[in-house]
Amino acid sequence: MQNFDYQTPTRLIFGKGVVEELPQVMSGFGKKILLTYGGGSIKKIGLYDKVKELLSGYEIYELSDIKPNPKYDPSVLDGVRMCKENEVDVILSVGGGSVLDCSKAIAAGAKYDGDPWDLISYKVKAKDALPIVDIITLAATGSEYDMGGVISRTETNDKIGYMDPLLYPVVSFLDPTYTFSVSKKQTAAGCADAMNHIMEQYFCEDSTILNDGFMEAGLKSLMINARKCLENPDDYTARAEMMLTCTYGCNGIYSLGNSYTGWPCHGMEHALSAYYDITHGEGLAIITPRWMKHILSEKTVERFVKYGVNVFGIDASLDKFEIAERAIEATYKFFESINIPMHLKDVGIDESRIDEMAKHVADNEGLENAWAPLMQKDIAEIFRASL
Amino acid sequence: MQNFDYQTPTRLIFGKGVVEELPQVMSGFGKKILLTYGGGSIKKIGLYDKVKELLSGYEIYELSDIKPNPKYDPSVLDGVRMCKENEVDVILSVGGGSVLDCSKAIAAGAKYDGDPWDLISYKVKAKDALPIVDIITLAATGSEYDMGGVISRTETNDKIGYMDPLLYPVVSFLDPTYTFSVSKKQTAAGCADAMNHIMEQYFCEDSTILNDGFMEAGLKSLMINARKCLENPDDYTARAEMMLTCTYGCNGIYSLGNSYTGWPCHGMEHALSAYYDITHGEGLAIITPRWMKHILSEKTVERFVKYGVNVFGIDASLDKFEIAERAIEATYKFFESINIPMHLKDVGIDESRIDEMAKHVADNEGLENAWAPLMQKDIAEIFRASL
Repeated sequence: MQNFDYQTPTRLIFGKGVVEELPQVMSGFGKKILLTYGGGSIKKIGLYDKVKELLSGYEIYELSDIKPNPKYDPSVLDGVRMCKENEVDVILSVGGGSVLDCSKAIAAGAKYDGDPWDLISYKVKAKDALPIVDIITLAATGSEYDMGGVISRTETNDKIGYMDPLLYPVVSFLDPTYTFSVSKKQTAAGCADAMNHIMEQYFCEDSTILNDGFMEAGLKSLMINARKCLENPDDYTARAEMMLTCTYGCNGIYSLGNSYTGWPCHGMEHALSAYYDITHGEGLAIITPRWMKHILSEKTVERFVKYGVNVFGIDASLDKFEIAERAIEATYKFFESINIPMHLKDVGIDESRIDEMAKHVADNEGLENAWAPLMQKDIAEIFRASL
Repeated sequence: MQNFDYQTPTRLIFGKGVVEELPQVMSGFGKKILLTYGGGSIKKIGLYDKVKELLSGYEIYELSDIKPNPKYDPSVLDGVRMCKENEVDVILSVGGGSVLDCSKAIAAGAKYDGDPWDLISYKVKAKDALPIVDIITLAATGSEYDMGGVISRTETNDKIGYMDPLLYPVVSFLDPTYTFSVSKKQTAAGCADAMNHIMEQYFCEDSTILNDGFMEAGLKSLMINARKCLENPDDYTARAEMMLTCTYGCNGIYSLGNSYTGWPCHGMEHALSAYYDITHGEGLAIITPRWMKHILSEKTVERFVKYGVNVFGIDASLDKFEIAERAIEATYKFFESINIPMHLKDVGIDESRIDEMAKHVADNEGLENAWAPLMQKDIAEIFRASL
């Protein structure tokens, strides 16, 4: 078991109707709020009006139209400028993980005099950040309970994960009813994203009974509840379980003390969605079973056996490689069963830039140090197998 | 799934040698430290000297000899007096859960002008508390990651759980090597305490796939690793897994969103250790299987089936009551196998005060609202079955 240093100070306020506590929570931060959101879904579900009504005494500046795979320019830069010009006290992020990721970069940028990219690219360590409160409306990224965000810079095809302990949300509101209207496509993609967060931690050299059981339960929770949400989008219990399971995805608690893994699928997928702006969860679902096949070996097979037996109930008495292959097939079949497009060509990616993307990943993601090391050649092979 | 409001701001610094970071952590709080500890085990393992060496520039006041089932008088009162007289800035608790529980009551009392019992008995809500840093040397209570403490007042036979969000430790140091020297008796009692923390949350009306898997893994981790620790006290991995699994015991994360349970075994055991000052974990181990037998019914049986199948691997095709009874028997046998005395008479408790204790529990613990409600008569029956 590895040494670790863990802290997640975020307060989670979870359940139906909890947004009523928003005025009390916001009262601690000052009167000037930057309200960040995406394309308008929060207006359709009445949440925008609700927030404005609850915060009627505040001075609210709005940054809207934050896109999936949120962009440095215009979103982050606009948000930073608005915070500085208006001396904003706190950011209220209302929406999914992309809105929150973008808000985190803004929170740091607002307290920094130079180009915010200095912080995102780790050229400069942030010294301060605006506090962030969020109301999360999608079960997927876990950004509501972690210190990271992923920002894309279009002109350089960069999609960078940016982490700093200053960026934990102070309070996250999670009301599962806000996810009732999430489309089937996004529900499935959110499930795949959250499953991959767990798999990125599960496939490692060294874990514990506790962590393995926690992660296996997380994977089962996501698969069982995603099916229920797709069948009945208003199933409160299923939406709530999805939401909580996703929340733990990226703050490390699933794997405290486990050995380093390198998060290889995220590293590879970041290139796909940077170059082609595809849905992150779909990109992950496509890559994951191909990555699994690629890395299956005498060295890695035991983890696949554990995964197959404990998550999919595969007969433990079979040959270990047989179990592993069945587990990989079951992973693929699950994603397919929730109607995720399972080939890159289905999401508009062809052969043409594969080598360029593979080089980009190999140059930037450090996957040569992953549990199962990946060189440029491996990455290109995984991409090609995913076509 | 129930609404919840959850936050655990404590930073966990975990692993071999992490105490070297103590000076850096302590530098944030001021120069005057109240160092709290127990009967001297921290001197035997060299930790006392190490702490004094690391903090050589500080003004350190020492409150020693804090007992298991820590006492209001003298320990809490002495600590409060020392903090006030010396204008202490921060408490450093070095030892097991009892030392830390006591330190939490001191932290609140030090910032309150009246009788600290006002706070512990919830007559007055604390407005402030001293910050607490701890170095935990026993895998058991989870006090290092929760906001509660249990304090005993001898003259009234009260043993009260006291909780306040002000009392989360700021930083908890967890070095598994400090538990190498824990006796077999205390290792087993710590395991039983931590198992019971999970069971108190597991046996409920309504849980989730995620929480159940997390708790089942916790129980398996404790049983497997406790055996390893007893066989080989210096098994780092086993000690480390025990320690982390215990850490989650009482801060609620094992059961976020689950329905109310009432923590009945703790409610009953508090009377036993208040009246007889027995080892808390042993009291819990003795009561737990008798409580299980007492509450087993058509209403509760399904939880016992899940427990039996998932924790003990009992054949799921058997009759449900057969599975439940085997699970209860397996619980008893496990405790017995790690040499816990399994009868109250083995720990010096006889029939004489059972009715008095049962009345005390019924009057003070609210167990009529537990998942399986317990009246005074039930409590007395469980105590008698435990003789």
